[in-house]
Amino acid sequence: MSLAEDLQWRYATKKMNGKPVPQEKVDYILEAARMAPSSSGVQPYEIFVITSQSLKEKIKPIAWGQEQITDTSHLLVFASWDGYSLERIEKVFQKTLEERKLPPDTMDAYKERLWSNYEPLSQEWHAHHAAKQAYIAFGMAIAAAAEQRVDATPMEGFIPDELDKILGLKEKGLKSILLLPLGYRDEENDWLVKMKKVRTPKKDFITEL
Amino acid sequence: MSLAEDLQWRYATKKMNGKPVPQEKVDYILEAARMAPSSSGVQPYEIFVITSQSLKEKIKPIAWGQEQITDTSHLLVFASWDGYSLERIEKVFQKTLEERKLPPDTMDAYKERLWSNYEPLSQEWHAHHAAKQAYIAFGMAIAAAAEQRVDATPMEGFIPDELDKILGLKEKGLKSILLLPLGYRDEENDWLVKMKKVRTPKKDFITEL
Repeated sequence: MSLAEDLQWRYATKKMNGKPVPQEKVDYILEAARMAPSSSGVQPYEIFVITSQSLKEKIKPIAWGQEQITDTSHLLVFASWDGYSLERIEKVFQKTLEERKLPPDTMDAYKERLWSNYEPLSQEWHAHHAAKQAYIAFGMAIAAAAEQRVDATPMEGFIPDELDKILGLKEKGLKSILLLPLGYRDEENDWLVKMKKVRTPKKDFITEL
Repeated sequence: MSLAEDLQWRYATKKMNGKPVPQEKVDYILEAARMAPSSSGVQPYEIFVITSQSLKEKIKPIAWGQEQITDTSHLLVFASWDGYSLERIEKVFQKTLEERKLPPDTMDAYKERLWSNYEPLSQEWHAHHAAKQAYIAFGMAIAAAAEQRVDATPMEGFIPDELDKILGLKEKGLKSILLLPLGYRDEENDWLVKMKKVRTPKKDFITEL
């Protein structure tokens, strides 16, 4: 199987059949997200894996009642930093230097340049930028799920502030940005499964220069 | 090979060896990006594939002189919509309905709900949201390149306004957001190739609830 085939196979599953996803497949999907690249390697995001049924029941009404939320065995919540700070960046770089066994000042010039770029920008810009990085990891999780023939529904449709309250994310300096329920398609009852996959035609998508 | 292995193999290549990437591999990578999911299937982004050496030479100085820009055979520029409009969304939905041979009013209620969400938000929010979708496609292109054992350097480090001018993107309602030069690593001269890949430890990245 190839990524091309995996991407053809997948679709935004509208109806799951309730069969649980084995933990090793969930772990594989999470690992793909963890390995995703991010700007300056900062990885300004985390993933919450919700298996508690009562917690899923609490989330469903703030996600337009979408049934995949409660029909999934594992609901992934992607949450990104609410902003950058020198402290947060330093913590990441310090870890990198330790892991690579490099002198502690190796990344100082890079760090200062990075922070001089970020510091003047608004908290709102920071949050958008951090969220963008998480979208790459989100894509990797979607690709990994498809490779494992696990269905997933990429979701932005929920009330982030409400979810942040439920999960206590504000106190952690995080914002919920994306949901990814994992499961298996209910072929008979999913209206989308037999619809043609539609994408921007190649001629409108690619310009060669 | 699996996505997990591909993601271990890849890294943000700092020095390319100048060997050109075969067109069929580039096409494969672009197709993965085209197949990426996006919010409501709108795909508010395009890709510019730059093979012109003189154009790459013009871009390099506005991308901090990064050598991969001119050492690559194919420089991908991801550009996203500068904002949403009812017209833009209608065009996409109309295409979807045609391709799926559905009655023209099938998506009207959905379209109205979507637009009623987007309309009150700022142009800046729109642009961030459109860009976020492109980051998913960017991730798919990175994964596809790795699968093909093609190196790539994900780049945000350039001056978008300047690149927009060079490519005439403003007139097209687009903003340049990401670069992805494709090529092959120069094992001997790339300082990063032998460094350990560092990521947020699993315990800090995943929370189970």
